[in-house]
Amino acid sequence: MSQAARQQQVLDFLRTLDGLKSVSRSAWLTDGSRRENDAEHTWHMAMFALLLPGALGLELDRGRLLELVLCHDLVEVLVGDVNVYDTAARAAQQAKEEAAAAELFGLLPADLRDFVAGCWQEFEHGDSPEARFARGLDRLQAISQNAWSGGRAWRERGITEARSRAVNAPAWAASPALEPLFEQLFRAAREEGLWAAEPPAPGS
Amino acid sequence: MSQAARQQQVLDFLRTLDGLKSVSRSAWLTDGSRRENDAEHTWHMAMFALLLPGALGLELDRGRLLELVLCHDLVEVLVGDVNVYDTAARAAQQAKEEAAAAELFGLLPADLRDFVAGCWQEFEHGDSPEARFARGLDRLQAISQNAWSGGRAWRERGITEARSRAVNAPAWAASPALEPLFEQLFRAAREEGLWAAEPPAPGS
Repeated sequence: MSQAARQQQVLDFLRTLDGLKSVSRSAWLTDGSRRENDAEHTWHMAMFALLLPGALGLELDRGRLLELVLCHDLVEVLVGDVNVYDTAARAAQQAKEEAAAAELFGLLPADLRDFVAGCWQEFEHGDSPEARFARGLDRLQAISQNAWSGGRAWRERGITEARSRAVNAPAWAASPALEPLFEQLFRAAREEGLWAAEPPAPGS
Repeated sequence: MSQAARQQQVLDFLRTLDGLKSVSRSAWLTDGSRRENDAEHTWHMAMFALLLPGALGLELDRGRLLELVLCHDLVEVLVGDVNVYDTAARAAQQAKEEAAAAELFGLLPADLRDFVAGCWQEFEHGDSPEARFARGLDRLQAISQNAWSGGRAWRERGITEARSRAVNAPAWAASPALEPLFEQLFRAAREEGLWAAEPPAPGS
């Protein structure tokens, strides 16, 4: 392949990624004007990745961490985002994402395809301390965004603190250094009354 | 400072950064639905940074490059974006950004403040090959986005190819490896007629 053709392939791939700016997520912006999108989520998560290893005194390869964060949701440009609390749809999403990865990363020259696919798989499988930390940040950014926007998306979906804890516990189990941050956010959200109310106990 | 207080400072900083999702830029999304914002621009530029050194066979510290990209526009959460073609406003913007950097980065614990301020200054001054490449990507992403959205923002502002070349030439002068990509985009934009028309020659 000529160098010009190689460059054009990469530019075409980068053009395709523009679509992530239109893949909506459930969390609202702090000003309540609209929901955030995948590009914004990934950018914000990258900012978490830039600062939190230092804030927590962790020895992580920050460059690799940023690479994993940047690649973790790319396939959603083809298959969209499925909310973390929608467990049935998430099970079906896995196979869709595998197919989307082959299609999307296949747009790149082979060496870059392998690099991006490697980042995505390392993240998906939690194959390194950086990947497990990145997986934790994926949840931490989402919980932060929901807490900072007054819990609106939680109440829309009837998400209680207990439900959120159950769904997100694997994140801090895999990367325990993040647990104090989750706890800080959960405590503030509880004090501000941001969660959906617990349903009444059976028989009550 | 307690570890909890340190964590809270970083979370508060990350919350402040959410505002960058609402700082609008001039370029349109490829679907024409709205203009892109600073968070999206930075994310997209980070994707350029992830792929282009490999695409061009460059030996750059990709981790550092990503850090510089992620920090380059943070101050705009306080002072907004000024378009690259608005040369008068850009001159005034420099002093505003210096003041904003002191205020914004001062929200962080001292070690993290110094880290982020160091990234921002290295980018601003083009103090390393990574910083000069990142400065080139800042322009390359903008030109790509405008070309991919049919040149709408160029024609809105009356930007001709000659004007764009004059304003953006320092980007590929500082990082010549990017020149073929700029040329590829300029050529495609010319063939598609995306620029504003050149004004008639004097006296014609």
